[in-house]
Amino acid sequence: MMTKLAVIFYSTYGTNHEIAEIAAEAARGTGAEVRLLRVAETAPQAVVDGQEAWKAQAEKTRDIPEVSHADMEWADGYLFVAPTRYGSAPSQLRAFIDTLGGLWSDGKLANKAVSAMTSASTAHGGQEATILGLYTSFMHWGAVVVAPGYTDPAIFQTGNPYGYSHTAGTPFDETARGVIGHQAKRLVEMAGKVAGKELATAA
Amino acid sequence: MMTKLAVIFYSTYGTNHEIAEIAAEAARGTGAEVRLLRVAETAPQAVVDGQEAWKAQAEKTRDIPEVSHADMEWADGYLFVAPTRYGSAPSQLRAFIDTLGGLWSDGKLANKAVSAMTSASTAHGGQEATILGLYTSFMHWGAVVVAPGYTDPAIFQTGNPYGYSHTAGTPFDETARGVIGHQAKRLVEMAGKVAGKELATAA
Amino acid sequence: MMTKLAVIFYSTYGTNHEIAEIAAEAARGTGAEVRLLRVAETAPQAVVDGQEAWKAQAEKTRDIPEVSHADMEWADGYLFVAPTRYGSAPSQLRAFIDTLGGLWSDGKLANKAVSAMTSASTAHGGQEATILGLYTSFMHWGAVVVAPGYTDPAIFQTGNPYGYSHTAGTPFDETARGVIGHQAKRLVEMAGKVAGKELATAA
Amino acid sequence: MMTKLAVIFYSTYGTNHEIAEIAAEAARGTGAEVRLLRVAETAPQAVVDGQEAWKAQAEKTRDIPEVSHADMEWADGYLFVAPTRYGSAPSQLRAFIDTLGGLWSDGKLANKAVSAMTSASTAHGGQEATILGLYTSFMHWGAVVVAPGYTDPAIFQTGNPYGYSHTAGTPFDETARGVIGHQAKRLVEMAGKVAGKELATAA
Repeated sequence: MMTKLAVIFYSTYGTNHEIAEIAAEAARGTGAEVRLLRVAETAPQAVVDGQEAWKAQAEKTRDIPEVSHADMEWADGYLFVAPTRYGSAPSQLRAFIDTLGGLWSDGKLANKAVSAMTSASTAHGGQEATILGLYTSFMHWGAVVVAPGYTDPAIFQTGNPYGYSHTAGTPFDETARGVIGHQAKRLVEMAGKVAGKELATAA
Repeated sequence: MMTKLAVIFYSTYGTNHEIAEIAAEAARGTGAEVRLLRVAETAPQAVVDGQEAWKAQAEKTRDIPEVSHADMEWADGYLFVAPTRYGSAPSQLRAFIDTLGGLWSDGKLANKAVSAMTSASTAHGGQEATILGLYTSFMHWGAVVVAPGYTDPAIFQTGNPYGYSHTAGTPFDETARGVIGHQAKRLVEMAGKVAGKELATAA
Repeated sequence: MMTKLAVIFYSTYGTNHEIAEIAAEAARGTGAEVRLLRVAETAPQAVVDGQEAWKAQAEKTRDIPEVSHADMEWADGYLFVAPTRYGSAPSQLRAFIDTLGGLWSDGKLANKAVSAMTSASTAHGGQEATILGLYTSFMHWGAVVVAPGYTDPAIFQTGNPYGYSHTAGTPFDETARGVIGHQAKRLVEMAGKVAGKELATAA
Repeated sequence: MMTKLAVIFYSTYGTNHEIAEIAAEAARGTGAEVRLLRVAETAPQAVVDGQEAWKAQAEKTRDIPEVSHADMEWADGYLFVAPTRYGSAPSQLRAFIDTLGGLWSDGKLANKAVSAMTSASTAHGGQEATILGLYTSFMHWGAVVVAPGYTDPAIFQTGNPYGYSHTAGTPFDETARGVIGHQAKRLVEMAGKVAGKELATAA
């Protein structure tokens, strides 16, 4: 049976959508069953429409399914991808997390392997704090937190051992893609182990 | 000129509303100008209406003004009061914080004295993490963070040196009221000092 | 092959030593191979000798082996147990962690399952921050963080989903022992899964 | 009466010593009384001597006084400067902090303005976590935390709103010096306000 990974992203202007696509592709390469899912927008439609870039991104991702409670139950592992808002995850993602009380109290979120990635506009603009804050929440669920550390040599170049961190506006070069892929594949591997599943291929 | 304090709360069932009222009253006792303000609800109306206790609390606080960007500019200090959601502030409060980008980039949130209080349903259910996570965000604004520490002996009884933490469902006894009042008054004192204002009375 | 767990504690007056003993015993009950190890004292001998309770505890644990680099390599999982010092682990434990640079850069600390427990003298006296701070460090190693969450119903009574937290001076009742045992056994289970080992008995 | 600032650093190879010197010089430029102080080494002498660069740095700073409890009482504000060790302050600094129990319980550490700076070898190598972890400890003391935020436009270039963060091995250019100086001067300003002192010159 295949390991099941939910790649769950929120993206205002596209950076985190791109991270999520790269991660999902790498995870699929391991043979895992992967769902690419977006977090529902909670900002008023007028606010979204008032910014061309935001509106365009919303339209571009319209056909990507919104993450549901059923997806949360289905998956063996979660990869969350979202930008920084003052050292915290955006309220859109927090709003989704706030709806999970029922699943949580039924123990349906326990023993999932989780990891997170983020972006910010400056070099140390809250990337660490955002990812660590998400992990703190996931611990309430009884998650198994799979931060990458420096388990791939390229992480010494990109930095963040808590999770891949992109500086908005910079390109996704081979190093970035490699680090994103490594984190996603390692998460699949650990999710499979925790769930007691075989990997189709070596991660 | 009086020190101006905004007491900004989000409360689903009333616990954090009560903390905010106690804090606002104590702050007023110092001679400070105090605005008690609530964070706008962002959950769908149907969800609120679907829970009697939530609906009742929403109706009870209908006449308390919603916090606005003008309030954020007006105040010398902010006291944020909100429950824990898996070790983070609720999405309603994060949604308000996410709207402050314009004020922040104009430097209008800098040099404000800030403090926070919270509640949770278990003894160490994320109270520390919630308050510390809020302070992390406020640091992005250039805030001056005024956690109480153990500056009042009663804090050795109630615990949290990062900010008052209530266990939901327990009563607000004299010790709790004293600790809440102390944190609020000390915040007024520090906000006045940072803003270069005289206190009407000793805090 | 048995899962190997290192229970690594630092204890000034005995509280964390007792937590570690309870955890080690529970872990052994799963069939795991368990080493109970203490962190070397780094305070000057005169300081230790100057406090009767500290000196007595030091003498009491003299025969428990000090944790070594070889232990860190040997184990599939680590359970760290140490008191709070202003919301952080004590310097004795940080000093041991600071010696691990060689093992870390050789990748010898990667893919270990880890968990932590703590104590403090007040109810929210930094217990959450201490455990979360340790997990942050372990993420640098490429650890798999196994916080208990609310995976056992008793945790709703004792509280901390990041790791068991004792209030110093209170007794270890059945609930406390159960929660400590649950966290230790779950760590063994996850360490075994990550390391690809069979459990002798169901955890 | 002058504002009194203690610049307290630990530096293994010199990076944080250099940050501290730049900060102390900027602070002196405001007219503040500044003490540059180093944290005592706690690693065994043989370990220090075993690394040429470490030994050389130890000898270079031999004449800088070690920070004492009297310095902690004397100062109106503290600037802590120390490298990252797996997302935490080094054990040498934690060991000094661990000795402050007596001052703390006498309330002698309360109402001090504090700020922190750090360095790491990679771009997001725990700099945020290290500074936030120190602030968490200082909150236990009743400190007033003065993180820089983005109160100077150059911080948008260097990044960390929690405190200046240097990537080890890179030069200290004008931008870096400006950001370090800004954080130090703003800390003096806030320390003076909290302590009720006049500034000699505008910060």
